[in-house]
Amino acid sequence: MQPVTIALDAMGGDHGPSVVVPAAVSAVERIDRLEAILVGDSETIGVELANRGRTDRVRVHHAGEQVGMDESPAQALRTKKDSSMRVALDLVACGQADACVSAGNTGALLAIARFVLKTLPGIDRPAIVSALPSRRGLTHVLDLGANVDATPEQLFQFAVMGSTLVSAIHRIREPRVGLLNVGEEEIKGHETVREAARLIARSDLNYRGFVEGDGIFSGEVDVVVCDGFAGNIALKSSEGAARMIGSMIEGEFRRTGLSRIAGVLARPVLQSVRRRIDPRNYNGAIFVGLRGTVVKSHGRADAYSFENAIREAVVEVQNNVPERIGEHLDVLLSQGPGE
Amino acid sequence: MQPVTIALDAMGGDHGPSVVVPAAVSAVERIDRLEAILVGDSETIGVELANRGRTDRVRVHHAGEQVGMDESPAQALRTKKDSSMRVALDLVACGQADACVSAGNTGALLAIARFVLKTLPGIDRPAIVSALPSRRGLTHVLDLGANVDATPEQLFQFAVMGSTLVSAIHRIREPRVGLLNVGEEEIKGHETVREAARLIARSDLNYRGFVEGDGIFSGEVDVVVCDGFAGNIALKSSEGAARMIGSMIEGEFRRTGLSRIAGVLARPVLQSVRRRIDPRNYNGAIFVGLRGTVVKSHGRADAYSFENAIREAVVEVQNNVPERIGEHLDVLLSQGPGE
Repeated sequence: MQPVTIALDAMGGDHGPSVVVPAAVSAVERIDRLEAILVGDSETIGVELANRGRTDRVRVHHAGEQVGMDESPAQALRTKKDSSMRVALDLVACGQADACVSAGNTGALLAIARFVLKTLPGIDRPAIVSALPSRRGLTHVLDLGANVDATPEQLFQFAVMGSTLVSAIHRIREPRVGLLNVGEEEIKGHETVREAARLIARSDLNYRGFVEGDGIFSGEVDVVVCDGFAGNIALKSSEGAARMIGSMIEGEFRRTGLSRIAGVLARPVLQSVRRRIDPRNYNGAIFVGLRGTVVKSHGRADAYSFENAIREAVVEVQNNVPERIGEHLDVLLSQGPGE
Repeated sequence: MQPVTIALDAMGGDHGPSVVVPAAVSAVERIDRLEAILVGDSETIGVELANRGRTDRVRVHHAGEQVGMDESPAQALRTKKDSSMRVALDLVACGQADACVSAGNTGALLAIARFVLKTLPGIDRPAIVSALPSRRGLTHVLDLGANVDATPEQLFQFAVMGSTLVSAIHRIREPRVGLLNVGEEEIKGHETVREAARLIARSDLNYRGFVEGDGIFSGEVDVVVCDGFAGNIALKSSEGAARMIGSMIEGEFRRTGLSRIAGVLARPVLQSVRRRIDPRNYNGAIFVGLRGTVVKSHGRADAYSFENAIREAVVEVQNNVPERIGEHLDVLLSQGPGE
């Protein structure tokens, strides 16, 4: 494996260094030639590192400030130039790191990443993409919340980025792309989504038409494209339904003596299903459309989950995802818009 | 119980009279003083009725045409004046029936209902509302697809209608109302949803702020308000996730001899959960905002499921839902807009 260096925002997320440091130590132990740069308050990070008794391939880079979870993105961008988030992104911009992973404030990470790394030519705004479990494997969905709305052209850019990402990471030659809508017929939905469908259908993408919300989980496509409002609603609604079903199953198994016994026997089976849909296993949302690799971990991630976000960043770097998206866009741009 | 007469579009849905007729017969057997008018081709309906051997409190009203499932709403409205759907709605308009239930083309039912019954004063467009299971009972969500977009004023009207409906049917004095958004903070989302939040917060509704997609299933509110695009995405995504989990559980129980045995023991428990989330038990989406009661059954409904849609209509009529919504709107309108 090629050497990969990841800058980690050690102060980000609900748990900061107490999660990021053990995740980094575990990741370098398991991933050959991975180097981690822990960015943040060197004293706090030092204490956490000392507890783990390991420092090779893990470096500390001091940064004196941090971005609050509720801070406004504009304010964080303007005033927090020595924050762990900003410095971690600066390390990517100047080539000292190959990627940045943060569990911090999503809006601030997006705004600072866009300012520091810049978007690729042909991309108006970055998008957030994540893999979700489906009946047949994984479905990548974007945008999951970077943009509350999107023009048809932006939806088309999301389609290009999602398709290139899936093709680069999962070695799928022509990923099947669907556009999220309220029905599968051409006349359904609002003008934005219908116009986006025309743009995508005319391109070289393997476009499969509109999909409804259940199409995310059916495995009928590899990439689902939507604006960040619809994407976030789809993600949170399905997570909420899954959690409700999980708690109903637990409750029912606890009702009677007999059902408790059945519950003990069924536990390994249900745990296996739980693992397959556990959001911790899908942690690590990728910001696509930037000239660099940025992965956002869930703010409440534990060390296991944060380590998955680090792995996601490593895979991105190894497969040159930003470069490949840039090349695909070059080809499309040279063909002229909407041809 | 007061006598209730329901006009049934016997030709609507994927199965037509073979589902609607047995559902009607079963409903009048179980619901005291319910009368059903089966609207559609009298010959086909007659054959189905003869098979059931029962005709008291079930009448047939002939209609020679029917609206196709894929027909354009505008075309159906203009040309299908003797369709089972149109005639069933006409029976409500002229007072011969108290409500109409149809499993037919949603767009056509909406367009014809709006033309025949008219909207209530103060309502721009009707909305589709349905109950979904939550951890603590039910959450009513609207709009589920009547309007792909909605202005802040329309979202406010949806909030009034949803709150009045839940209060009338479930005897909840001040239903908790949430507005679907991509975050709970006030600065989240687009301008439409933020302006709607201001309108709802200023009204007499029990407004609890923004909820995310998982808020539909958490039981934190009684009513979730959204435009039809977001509502449909939330509904279909959560149904898709639930179906995927169900099929994963089935698959895991089939893997080994031991897991098969666990599966047999766990079956009653899992079936009980399945019943609690079975969409057939929540069948019957109510069109609110009309001067009359219209319930839309799922197009693929079986007789059990269609009978639930009939029950939904009966409950609506018994609780005078359209009148109560009208009265609530009168009060709000007399206070002046946005005060």
